Amino acid sequence: MALSESDLITRFFRNCGAQRRDVVLGVGDDAALTECPPGMQLAATTDTLVAGVHFPHPTPPAAIGHRALAVNLSDLAAMGARPAWALLALTLPEAGESWLTEFAAGFGALARAHEVALIGGDTTQGPLTVSVQLLGHVPRGRALTRAGGRAGQLVYVSGTPGDAAAGLALEQGRLGAPPQAAPYLRERFLMPTPRVALGERLRDYACACIDVSDGLLGDAGKLAAASGVGLEMYYAALPVSRALVEAVGANAARELALTGGDDYELLFTVEPARAAELERALPQEQWNYRQIGVLRAAAGVVLTRDGTVMDFSHSGYQHFS
Amino acid sequence: MALSESDLITRFFRNCGAQRRDVVLGVGDDAALTECPPGMQLAATTDTLVAGVHFPHPTPPAAIGHRALAVNLSDLAAMGARPAWALLALTLPEAGESWLTEFAAGFGALARAHEVALIGGDTTQGPLTVSVQLLGHVPRGRALTRAGGRAGQLVYVSGTPGDAAAGLALEQGRLGAPPQAAPYLRERFLMPTPRVALGERLRDYACACIDVSDGLLGDAGKLAAASGVGLEMYYAALPVSRALVEAVGANAARELALTGGDDYELLFTVEPARAAELERALPQEQWNYRQIGVLRAAAGVVLTRDGTVMDFSHSGYQHFS
Repeated sequence: MALSESDLITRFFRNCGAQRRDVVLGVGDDAALTECPPGMQLAATTDTLVAGVHFPHPTPPAAIGHRALAVNLSDLAAMGARPAWALLALTLPEAGESWLTEFAAGFGALARAHEVALIGGDTTQGPLTVSVQLLGHVPRGRALTRAGGRAGQLVYVSGTPGDAAAGLALEQGRLGAPPQAAPYLRERFLMPTPRVALGERLRDYACACIDVSDGLLGDAGKLAAASGVGLEMYYAALPVSRALVEAVGANAARELALTGGDDYELLFTVEPARAAELERALPQEQWNYRQIGVLRAAAGVVLTRDGTVMDFSHSGYQHFS
Repeated sequence: MALSESDLITRFFRNCGAQRRDVVLGVGDDAALTECPPGMQLAATTDTLVAGVHFPHPTPPAAIGHRALAVNLSDLAAMGARPAWALLALTLPEAGESWLTEFAAGFGALARAHEVALIGGDTTQGPLTVSVQLLGHVPRGRALTRAGGRAGQLVYVSGTPGDAAAGLALEQGRLGAPPQAAPYLRERFLMPTPRVALGERLRDYACACIDVSDGLLGDAGKLAAASGVGLEMYYAALPVSRALVEAVGANAARELALTGGDDYELLFTVEPARAAELERALPQEQWNYRQIGVLRAAAGVVLTRDGTVMDFSHSGYQHFS
C-alpha cells in the first residue's frame, strides 16, 4: 500500500485522540492552534522511542503507540501538570495499514483516557522512531520540580519498580518466569501506567518530584542533586511485586527495583509534618505509593540496610555508555 | 566519548537558543514551563528530518541543526505566527562531541535569530533522526490557514522555488553546475530561509497561506483543496533564479520550481482589491514575492501558458510512494 503523508495523517490520526474545545485547529494545516487557559502555565515535554533501543523489535504496534504517549504523560505527571495536547512525529519503514491501525488504537485509547487531543504530526519514512511532544497545564507557580527537596523530607515512590525491566527481559527471552507471573510483568513493560492523577494530587503535598524512568536509584540521585541534598534509601522498604519476586527471587527483585528502568513511577518528597495529611488524603493502599527513604544534608545517594550503608555500584540506565 | 543523556542535554543544549523571560523553567527537569501571553493563541507544529531521506549522508551538522529548526519555522510562518519555544528530539548513532557542537551551533544561531528558546529535549541512540517541535503565538482569530482561499483571489509565492532541489542534486552529485551558480544553490538546500517576518506581516493582507515544502504545484493544490476551490498557475510568471537557469536551463528550472520540494517559501492568496495595498506595504523587490496565479471556482490545479492549459503530471514529493 502506498500512502502519501497527508493521507496517512488524515486517515489514521485525525480523530485518534480526545476531542477538546480548546483546540481551535487540529491536524491538517501547517500548524495547530489552541487556546491556553488563563491562570495556567504551559508544561511541555518530548520523549522518543527507537525500535531496538527502547523496545524490542517486533513489539505489538498498539503497545508502541501506548508507550510513546505514556512516557510523555509520565513526564507531565512528575510536574503535577494536566496533559492536554500531543504532537506525534512518526518515522516508519513502510506505511502498513494494519500496523498503523493498531498503533493509532494504542495511542488513541491512552490519549482519550487522559483527555489528550492529538493536534499535529509528521510521518516520515525511515527506521522506526516515535517522538511525541506533549503539552499540558499547571496552575501558575504550582508545578512540582526536581529542585524542591530539602534535608529531612520523606522520600516516596509509587508502584513497584523493577517489574518493567523483568517484563522487557521476558520479551527478549533473557528471562523465564512462572506462568502466574509472566503476563503481569510483560504487561508492565509493554503498557506502562503513567501516574497522571497522582501527580496532579501531589501538587498539594509534595515538595519535589521526578519520574522514575531510568532506574530508581539513578533518578533519585538526579532529584537529590537538583535539590542540592543527598538521599538515604532504605533497602528493606523497597516495594517489589510478588510477581517479580516469583520470577527472579527477592534479592534480584530489589536490584531490578533499584536499577531496572522503564518504570514510569513517581518519586516524590514530602515534609514530615505533612506526611499524615498526605496519607489521609491519598490512602496508600488506594494510591499505591510507599516511603522508601529520606533526604539528607550530605550529598550523594546511599542505600542502607539495618542502619548500615550498602555498597551498590549501579546507577541507572544510560543511553550512551 | 561516552556521555549520559542528561550530560548531553546540559552541555550542548541548555544555552543553545534565545533567552526568553516567558520561560519559567527550561531544559533540565521532567518538562519545561512557560507563560502564554494573553490574547494570543498557541501555534504548534512538528517536523522530522531523517538522514538519507531528508538530507544526504553526510551533511554538515550545522546545516542539519539549522534545517531541522528552519522547516518548523516555515510552518509557523505559514500560519502568520511568531515562534517562541522549541523542543528537540535528537536520535543519533553516537555522541560525538564535534558533531554535537556543530549541530548545536547551527540550531542555536537560527533559534537566536528568531528569538526562539530551546526549552526541552530528548537525546536517544539510534539512526540519525531529528524531530523539532515548535511553539509560537498568533493573535486570537488572526492565524492564516490553508482554508481561507476564495475564487478570484490572487496567488503569490515568495522567493525562487526549485533552487533547493537543484542544491540537493548538487550535494548528491546528480547534477553539475557552473562555479558561479553551484555555491548559491547548495546553500539554498543546506540553509533554507524560513519566511517568518513575511508570514507575520501577511496576517494583515493574505486570506490563505501554506508553506511550500513538498513542491509548489502539489502544495498549491493542497491550499486550493482545503479552500474548496481550484487554482490557475501561470507558467511564464514562475519566479526562477538566474543560478537555477544557469545550472539546468530555463525549462528544467521551471519544472524544478513546480515540483522540486524543500523550498520553504510561502504561497498565499490576496483579494484583488487588497493587492495594491499589499504591494505598497510590502514592496515586492524588498520582500521577494510575486503573483503566479489566481484561484478559480473549478476544482483542481491547472498550469497555463499563453492562456492554454499545459499538461503537467507531477504533483509534488510524496514520502511514501
